[in-house]
Amino acid sequence: MTTQDIAISDETIEQLRHVSTATLTTQLFKRGLRNVFLQGVAPLVKPAAGAPNMVGPAFTLRNIPAREDLDHVGVFKNPDHPQRKAVETAPAGSVLVQDCRGDRSVASTGSILTTRLKVRGVAGMVSDGCVRDSGTIGDIGLPLFCAGASAPLNLARHHAVDMNVPIACGGVAVYPGDIVVGDVDGVVIVPREMAAEVARDAAEQEIMEEFIAERVQGGAILRGTYPPDESTLAAFAEWRSKRK
Amino acid sequence: MTTQDIAISDETIEQLRHVSTATLTTQLFKRGLRNVFLQGVAPLVKPAAGAPNMVGPAFTLRNIPAREDLDHVGVFKNPDHPQRKAVETAPAGSVLVQDCRGDRSVASTGSILTTRLKVRGVAGMVSDGCVRDSGTIGDIGLPLFCAGASAPLNLARHHAVDMNVPIACGGVAVYPGDIVVGDVDGVVIVPREMAAEVARDAAEQEIMEEFIAERVQGGAILRGTYPPDESTLAAFAEWRSKRK
Amino acid sequence: MTTQDIAISDETIEQLRHVSTATLTTQLFKRGLRNVFLQGVAPLVKPAAGAPNMVGPAFTLRNIPAREDLDHVGVFKNPDHPQRKAVETAPAGSVLVQDCRGDRSVASTGSILTTRLKVRGVAGMVSDGCVRDSGTIGDIGLPLFCAGASAPLNLARHHAVDMNVPIACGGVAVYPGDIVVGDVDGVVIVPREMAAEVARDAAEQEIMEEFIAERVQGGAILRGTYPPDESTLAAFAEWRSKRK
Amino acid sequence: MTTQDIAISDETIEQLRHVSTATLTTQLFKRGLRNVFLQGVAPLVKPAAGAPNMVGPAFTLRNIPAREDLDHVGVFKNPDHPQRKAVETAPAGSVLVQDCRGDRSVASTGSILTTRLKVRGVAGMVSDGCVRDSGTIGDIGLPLFCAGASAPLNLARHHAVDMNVPIACGGVAVYPGDIVVGDVDGVVIVPREMAAEVARDAAEQEIMEEFIAERVQGGAILRGTYPPDESTLAAFAEWRSKRK
Amino acid sequence: MTTQDIAISDETIEQLRHVSTATLTTQLFKRGLRNVFLQGVAPLVKPAAGAPNMVGPAFTLRNIPAREDLDHVGVFKNPDHPQRKAVETAPAGSVLVQDCRGDRSVASTGSILTTRLKVRGVAGMVSDGCVRDSGTIGDIGLPLFCAGASAPLNLARHHAVDMNVPIACGGVAVYPGDIVVGDVDGVVIVPREMAAEVARDAAEQEIMEEFIAERVQGGAILRGTYPPDESTLAAFAEWRSKRK
Amino acid sequence: MTTQDIAISDETIEQLRHVSTATLTTQLFKRGLRNVFLQGVAPLVKPAAGAPNMVGPAFTLRNIPAREDLDHVGVFKNPDHPQRKAVETAPAGSVLVQDCRGDRSVASTGSILTTRLKVRGVAGMVSDGCVRDSGTIGDIGLPLFCAGASAPLNLARHHAVDMNVPIACGGVAVYPGDIVVGDVDGVVIVPREMAAEVARDAAEQEIMEEFIAERVQGGAILRGTYPPDESTLAAFAEWRSKRK
Repeated sequence: MTTQDIAISDETIEQLRHVSTATLTTQLFKRGLRNVFLQGVAPLVKPAAGAPNMVGPAFTLRNIPAREDLDHVGVFKNPDHPQRKAVETAPAGSVLVQDCRGDRSVASTGSILTTRLKVRGVAGMVSDGCVRDSGTIGDIGLPLFCAGASAPLNLARHHAVDMNVPIACGGVAVYPGDIVVGDVDGVVIVPREMAAEVARDAAEQEIMEEFIAERVQGGAILRGTYPPDESTLAAFAEWRSKRK
Repeated sequence: MTTQDIAISDETIEQLRHVSTATLTTQLFKRGLRNVFLQGVAPLVKPAAGAPNMVGPAFTLRNIPAREDLDHVGVFKNPDHPQRKAVETAPAGSVLVQDCRGDRSVASTGSILTTRLKVRGVAGMVSDGCVRDSGTIGDIGLPLFCAGASAPLNLARHHAVDMNVPIACGGVAVYPGDIVVGDVDGVVIVPREMAAEVARDAAEQEIMEEFIAERVQGGAILRGTYPPDESTLAAFAEWRSKRK
Repeated sequence: MTTQDIAISDETIEQLRHVSTATLTTQLFKRGLRNVFLQGVAPLVKPAAGAPNMVGPAFTLRNIPAREDLDHVGVFKNPDHPQRKAVETAPAGSVLVQDCRGDRSVASTGSILTTRLKVRGVAGMVSDGCVRDSGTIGDIGLPLFCAGASAPLNLARHHAVDMNVPIACGGVAVYPGDIVVGDVDGVVIVPREMAAEVARDAAEQEIMEEFIAERVQGGAILRGTYPPDESTLAAFAEWRSKRK
Repeated sequence: MTTQDIAISDETIEQLRHVSTATLTTQLFKRGLRNVFLQGVAPLVKPAAGAPNMVGPAFTLRNIPAREDLDHVGVFKNPDHPQRKAVETAPAGSVLVQDCRGDRSVASTGSILTTRLKVRGVAGMVSDGCVRDSGTIGDIGLPLFCAGASAPLNLARHHAVDMNVPIACGGVAVYPGDIVVGDVDGVVIVPREMAAEVARDAAEQEIMEEFIAERVQGGAILRGTYPPDESTLAAFAEWRSKRK
Repeated sequence: MTTQDIAISDETIEQLRHVSTATLTTQLFKRGLRNVFLQGVAPLVKPAAGAPNMVGPAFTLRNIPAREDLDHVGVFKNPDHPQRKAVETAPAGSVLVQDCRGDRSVASTGSILTTRLKVRGVAGMVSDGCVRDSGTIGDIGLPLFCAGASAPLNLARHHAVDMNVPIACGGVAVYPGDIVVGDVDGVVIVPREMAAEVARDAAEQEIMEEFIAERVQGGAILRGTYPPDESTLAAFAEWRSKRK
Repeated sequence: MTTQDIAISDETIEQLRHVSTATLTTQLFKRGLRNVFLQGVAPLVKPAAGAPNMVGPAFTLRNIPAREDLDHVGVFKNPDHPQRKAVETAPAGSVLVQDCRGDRSVASTGSILTTRLKVRGVAGMVSDGCVRDSGTIGDIGLPLFCAGASAPLNLARHHAVDMNVPIACGGVAVYPGDIVVGDVDGVVIVPREMAAEVARDAAEQEIMEEFIAERVQGGAILRGTYPPDESTLAAFAEWRSKRK
């Protein structure tokens, strides 16, 4: 059932950098997938207008509830502590996705670990928990998508338990290797095996919607325009042919 | 029970553009209405300082939960689909208010429909659901009040079912024709039959509060100032008479 | 059990102004306190980068649910109304902390009361309810930490009942005199009797973390660096000795 | 889109009386419908073992939030008040389904209205709100499925607004005429156009599961038994042929 | 504002023992009080049919969140611990009402304290938290209304802080001395100053409703019967006169 | 960190069968563990008075959210489907504990799988999701602790993904081999390494509390009795010595 071996082309990654999560959820909806957008997760810092999306294959970290006797500050002395190990293991270009059970009461990362992820070339971090140091962590330059800001350290609620296993995040299934795409609206999980096709069709959909948006700005009524009827499709074909 | 025929003067609309929703809720509280402010709804983009409020009569759209066999992307080909029809029917100057049952998991509008509303002269859109394309939709210039950003299309959760009927939005009853006022704090529903009186008294209340705020900034203690006693009221009368 | 008589030095206050709530929660976690960070409470206006924290001893105000016959607008004519009295009584330098039972449906303060607190020299206001006039209230210059913006006046839900008693706020116990610290992540309650020690150790922790962050930015792996092993500690000692 | 004219045979109704809602949700799942079971709704009184299900076509009543000036006890003097009218209009054999927006704070019916429904031959009442008089209302003999017990009258939160329109109940779309089935687990909505087929297949599924359950009780392992392989299917065919 | 000195007659108490909380909420609604029924609170053991209600003046206990260093098992050695003191102080005939902030994660009482309350003649216990020992605590014979069963001791979440002050319970204001009435639907708080009048009118309302219920059972339509028109009122007057 | 090899004596199991979960949470609280009781989980059928507890080592099953293309009814044809495999693998005497992320919208087991667990000698099933067939599943005789009844099959929300790994259930960490104890209040997780000591101390605590309860029933005041002072302890010692 694992699909991690499916290759993802640079072209697919590049296409996914420039289509919206809105378009991607529509493409996945057309393929029968209704539950692909992480609930309760948003960019910590609103991306600049026109900035490319965060895109990368998921590398996962699973947390379960903390137990007071097991989760004390001493655990970090163990270099094989799963959270620290995940930060050192997630490949360059991947997105570290944490299952925090939607618990917003504590942080799931802070600025030192985020710096390490950035230095290692990881593409971003996603969590359905919060982050601490929220005033400055955005300056590190690693895209962060999370449930908001919270100061307490993860150990107060979380026990990192294993990595690179299928997890839940924001109510969505995330399999290692699934393509994670984040923009201003939030984060969508594109199943790896659908990524190439979905990326291509999403890019095409956005070109069409650019044309439709122009028409609607110009006063066109919805009927026949959105969705397009034959006549609008013909006009689009012409418009499209003139466009590089 | 419908009160849509009551005329609303331009003066009332103008007054409502320049008083806060805070003041309006106080005026409605004085008239026995405690549940007039939409819960969980906020401006998508913070209004500029001093910008006038969104104001207009409610034109409503009701959504019920989606059913997979009825709510597929093909439905939009029907130009009488209630959502598309509502966008084409809401009068210029009105505010389109959507009942999304407070469901934050999907979008209740996107940029093309919002553009069409703007072109048609609609005054704003309110929803207790989310919107997609949240990074750019604010640039269209239509005031949007909603539960936040979410990428998935409405069909994943909503079936638009009828328009211009009384609805629930953000836990508040909204009757077609009620006056919807939105500012930085959120949205208040002013029953149409009270709008003229509430607008006038709210405007008056704000003049008084401007005077009180000045006094408090100047060091006045609350006792006798807020609320004003006879002596403060006399000072206010004088201050008021000097003001145009 | 009251600890309000314990003196808090200016040095402690100054230290707390310059350490993050993240660091403070870690110091309190080390002392066995896991529930010290207010849930659902955030700064209304994001503090400027580098701005000092809000810091001061808690002066509390307790609200219970409103009852329609007791909580009408006439109550404010009573200058001994507990909310008004609290605003006039909270000492200069203190932080007014309100127990609103986490109810986000109404405001717990507005601009006139906030102005009075500012004029009186109060250090800040914290509430697990909302505030109204959210567009302009931040300009008054009083740090406000709350659950968000909501227009309706407090009387629609709250009955202010007593002040300077132990309360719940954001799910955390707040005893009068506890030191309240607020930054961009939110608000932490430091028990008064631990404040001096916690402030000192937090300041020290942050110096260490500055050193570690530099190393990680420079490419150091987490193992041996964070937390530091003997060799890193030795390097730190040298770095520390060179720093003023 | 209305399907109310599709006839439902007595055989279908009878089949639906004797299959579980668990089986029905499985049949609907096989047809692509995942959201057919009312969330947060349960029988007020646990049905007796072996009792037939509540079954009947939906007759709906829609409630929106109350407004204090419109929803006072005087409204019931109007015999055309939608709630009273719905109680007098729901056909014998139908199930009255109320949209209460999942609000559990007040009642959606009490013993006098329930008595009237029973006298009129209505088959049951379903609400995603609560009921009052919960100690004795079960003795009336009308099957009631709801969110629990709550004393306050509906007017404190609800304004009955129209009837026999599509509604939301327990997070599920309910169209007038859909077949409502309630058993000990709760309530499932069977789209009217699928009812005959779903009823027939559900009845057949339960015969098969009776056979499988016998085998598992007798020690059969799951592999090959549940779901059945060819050999188990052959054994089932024989068992089935011996059964009436 | 305290009304604890208002005498409550034995007749009032007796009337309140025999009217439903449903009727009481209607009487209070008529007087403008919409928020008098505790949300999320139910009888732990369903009262026997026909059993009198729990009735008594409120004696309150307020809890705030626990702090690990203050709330250890040793605190109970202090005989003045507020919870223990409340159990020993609540007068015979009163109802002990606990503010647990609606926290369902731990118990707010167990069998030994409940036994002590019973021995002391207290009329009942109400909490918006849970109780432990739920299998046997009902056998003690003290009416208990709570949020359900939960095993952990109160100290894990609660710090009992003071008694006989106004509190919140189940989202409702409870003033010491208010009359607490509990039946199968749950608990209503009757403000002490209204108790006599409300009890009398509630008793009268129930006689009327008994008559109406008889008529409806006999086939009367709602129009003219519920609420009664002049003709039904005349019939009621006659029926009433024949009844003792 | 795995402790599954620690032997658990029959005496410990027997002790745990006869102490309450209330007592066990107190013993664990004394050892610093505050989060050991599953939230939102209760026995489906109230245990008979005096019935022994469900007790056994945890065998876990982890579920993540379903994905429509992966979780169709065909998956059960795979005999290695993790849910089916878990049912066939959980050892006799163990308790199958499912992580359903607290999702109450669907079932996590039904009567056929429960029958198989019973036949295989499994000691019980715990889930923070619901179960279907709730009217009859209790007759199978396997103790079931869950979030309630819900008809839809697990596939509508859950994807069973792996077994015998540490999981979250009801907000609590459950490690394979931890001792799961369920009674009328709910379920407590006793870390395996503490089980022997906790069981012994819990048994002793209950004997003491039986003595205290007798005293309180006899009219003893709390002071000096609960907790016991020296004199009560002496009386207890004597009472204890006379008891076999």
